[in-house]
Amino acid sequence: MGRVTERRRVIRIRDGAVSTRPDTLVAEEPLEIRLNGKPLAITMRTPGDDFALAAGFLVSEGVLGRADELANIVYCAGATPGGGSNTYNVVDVTLAPGVPVPDITLERNVYTTSSCGLCGKASLDAVRTTARWPLEDGFGDGRDGAGSPGSPGSPGSPVRIEPETLSALPDRLRAAQRVFDRTGGLHAAALFTPDGELLDLREDVGRHNAVDKLVGRALQQGLLPLSGSVLMVSGRASFELAQKAVMAGIPVLAAVSAPSSLAVDLAAETGLTLVGFLRGTSMNVYAGEQRLALRTAVGGA
Amino acid sequence: MGRVTERRRVIRIRDGAVSTRPDTLVAEEPLEIRLNGKPLAITMRTPGDDFALAAGFLVSEGVLGRADELANIVYCAGATPGGGSNTYNVVDVTLAPGVPVPDITLERNVYTTSSCGLCGKASLDAVRTTARWPLEDGFGDGRDGAGSPGSPGSPGSPVRIEPETLSALPDRLRAAQRVFDRTGGLHAAALFTPDGELLDLREDVGRHNAVDKLVGRALQQGLLPLSGSVLMVSGRASFELAQKAVMAGIPVLAAVSAPSSLAVDLAAETGLTLVGFLRGTSMNVYAGEQRLALRTAVGGA
Repeated sequence: MGRVTERRRVIRIRDGAVSTRPDTLVAEEPLEIRLNGKPLAITMRTPGDDFALAAGFLVSEGVLGRADELANIVYCAGATPGGGSNTYNVVDVTLAPGVPVPDITLERNVYTTSSCGLCGKASLDAVRTTARWPLEDGFGDGRDGAGSPGSPGSPGSPVRIEPETLSALPDRLRAAQRVFDRTGGLHAAALFTPDGELLDLREDVGRHNAVDKLVGRALQQGLLPLSGSVLMVSGRASFELAQKAVMAGIPVLAAVSAPSSLAVDLAAETGLTLVGFLRGTSMNVYAGEQRLALRTAVGGA
Repeated sequence: MGRVTERRRVIRIRDGAVSTRPDTLVAEEPLEIRLNGKPLAITMRTPGDDFALAAGFLVSEGVLGRADELANIVYCAGATPGGGSNTYNVVDVTLAPGVPVPDITLERNVYTTSSCGLCGKASLDAVRTTARWPLEDGFGDGRDGAGSPGSPGSPGSPVRIEPETLSALPDRLRAAQRVFDRTGGLHAAALFTPDGELLDLREDVGRHNAVDKLVGRALQQGLLPLSGSVLMVSGRASFELAQKAVMAGIPVLAAVSAPSSLAVDLAAETGLTLVGFLRGTSMNVYAGEQRLALRTAVGGA
């Protein structure tokens, strides 16, 4: 509770100089909201104010409007077998007697899950998907598109990317955003080759949608897994975006702004190269640095 | 389809000068994704590339991995009674024979809905909630908090806000974001009085969570409806954020960046004052301008 930030190791690149240091990241964890004991929604949130978050969510959904309609909010008491897991990721809201319990999952769209056997860890599992292909350098399993004409990647050739190439991507992304100049309101996601060539760009009011559009187009063209490509996104790198990269077999995710703690953890687990704060000749590498052609040995404070 | 932007009337304020002109906004509409005819998810997206979006979403969910696992994607053919409604907001994905249809709604969290009787309009209705209190200036219905001690609003006093007061909010928001300086990765939402006094601030990796935390805290304190307060958010103003403001009885929503088309439409329908691009002494007013103390008569090109 209240872990608004978490510490992770980061490799900093500043004008070619490479150093390693601890960095402070925004904490991101799933919160499962139950209503009268029944799973209702999962949201990816920064821990803290969880009871207020659950109450406010129910105001937004039209369930609560007055304090006296709310009987109680508690953290789920269940613990994971073996212990050690966070049990503060499930809250149960009890409405006051007489307050109607809406059948929200039937009437309106909410995040739902029934993975409610265990607290905390179960919630985290609930938001995780399992990739079909490992994010390893070189794919030799002959999957769809790995060696087909037009595939951005070629099997067996590990992705290596120069920091200078990464530094050029934000400007290329922005230059390709024709709509951006008209509205100032669109997120963008783009696929590049490891040489920095733009393969595809999609924009959307939601960053996750822009990535889904890129990946969906690639699927339709038989290009999955996108093992030879780099995904660049405007703004932040959330757990959800990191997961989408992994699910599409994309080995490198670069973001203009900060990643969340859970995005970094997922990248470290899966082997995804995760680059954040990609601005000018500066960037932070949070995981998967083996794909970056770093001329300086990684050392530092 | 492909309506990436939409035009809306906007009141521009630049250093005190007021003018009215058409503005280009990012289009935001709900897309319902069905899998083999069964409603699976709703996402708020910018129209266009909808088939790719649906396919990519299913890649992210682990349902699709190869082009030949996808048999077909079509827009739902059903039309709304009376016509006129958009029928391009529901897509149905058919998997190839033999591809397992996962029971996603039971295994993982996805946006779900069963409001599937009608296309398009039904989807939009599905994401809408109904407010308990109208967003009118002056509340005299004696609801919880409207006249209680510590309530930021007082019944019967319409909210009026000076543009100069709005201009000061972003700096006050930023100054109050202690965590921001440490991570650079957090969204913020804050409640202010119409005089610009900070009432409460919450931060989260998700902007919608930050607003839910504010509203939930207010509910717990018996302060709903927040009829005498101004909600200020970092970043963009989406439909979801506008709706959360309306559901909490907040009459003014101000954002640093652009609103979406659907946020503007909802604001116009409900009487919400919606201010975007709030930067320095400039801002755009998209709806509810009667609450702004504009010294210059609204005119313009």
